[in-house]
Amino acid sequence: MTKAFDLRIAVPEVRRYIRVLAISGSLRARSSNTALLESAARLAHAGMEIAVFTGLGDLPHFNPDLDGEGHEAPLAVASLRELVSAADGLIISSPEYAHGIPGSMKNALDWLVSYPDFAGKPVVVWNASAAGGQRAQASLVEILTTMSARLLVEASLVEPFLRKRLSPGAELTDDDALLAVRSSLAALSASCA
Amino acid sequence: MTKAFDLRIAVPEVRRYIRVLAISGSLRARSSNTALLESAARLAHAGMEIAVFTGLGDLPHFNPDLDGEGHEAPLAVASLRELVSAADGLIISSPEYAHGIPGSMKNALDWLVSYPDFAGKPVVVWNASAAGGQRAQASLVEILTTMSARLLVEASLVEPFLRKRLSPGAELTDDDALLAVRSSLAALSASCA
Repeated sequence: MTKAFDLRIAVPEVRRYIRVLAISGSLRARSSNTALLESAARLAHAGMEIAVFTGLGDLPHFNPDLDGEGHEAPLAVASLRELVSAADGLIISSPEYAHGIPGSMKNALDWLVSYPDFAGKPVVVWNASAAGGQRAQASLVEILTTMSARLLVEASLVEPFLRKRLSPGAELTDDDALLAVRSSLAALSASCA
Repeated sequence: MTKAFDLRIAVPEVRRYIRVLAISGSLRARSSNTALLESAARLAHAGMEIAVFTGLGDLPHFNPDLDGEGHEAPLAVASLRELVSAADGLIISSPEYAHGIPGSMKNALDWLVSYPDFAGKPVVVWNASAAGGQRAQASLVEILTTMSARLLVEASLVEPFLRKRLSPGAELTDDDALLAVRSSLAALSASCA
């Protein structure tokens, strides 16, 4: 076999883009977090594809009895896990409820705790809360670190300024916010490459 | 009307027992937290009735669009809220998943954040984890405080010793554990009275 047919060498060269799974932690129809992720998907550079996931509400409640060896994951869980496996990196954008992350957001993470493909995945954490959000962010960092995510803390958007900077059409137009999102995407891209 | 018929005076005297809602944070069939609460229900003194709630898995995912004025709560949410209203105090016994509380536990709390009857309710927090549990406990304290619960921190069982002290039949038999549970119930009872 010649070197030209060695797939271990050829594969990285034909890989043309970075796939990012962007999970919105809110189920609201007019969610700022979902709008932020959709704006980011439109901003992504040519080599990056961002798929926005808003299906947290379709997942069953996590039950350890139904997880692990000998159990087939519920369909919605299997779908989320496939999306995670196919992604090179993740963005999680979550609101804060009562100084914590939404239960539905944590429930999705509970289903990913024992999923091997999640560990080591580059993750950035965003927050589009109107005010505050730091406690939810801190909880997410603690949980994701425990789950062995490769958390890009320096690329996370912790400042609660983003919601105010979405246009009425939920477009990100503010220069500073655009810069912050582009920087975060660039850091995630570099980590995935 | 004579004083004997003034219900505002008569009602406190005919009230014979304290009603406690005990919420298990685990959906496992053989959950240590559920077993601990069921043991406590059997230990309760004559003037206390403890109802164990294991229905977190029946609640829909919280969505702010469906909460608040002008919205009728989903049936399972309305049932939980009625149980909370009818209770003089609450016990929450929750496992820890990935250094946080289970998503399904937080989801139930998300539905209670804006429910007026929850605020001011005496609450004790227990944990029957095999090991650790302090981070879930700290999260619960932060969240419940934000929700204006009357948290009885000194009556909470933070020590991760309880699981080991359940008998194979999930009965609490260990003297120290029995003492800890009885003390916590007494403090809750005093706070409810």
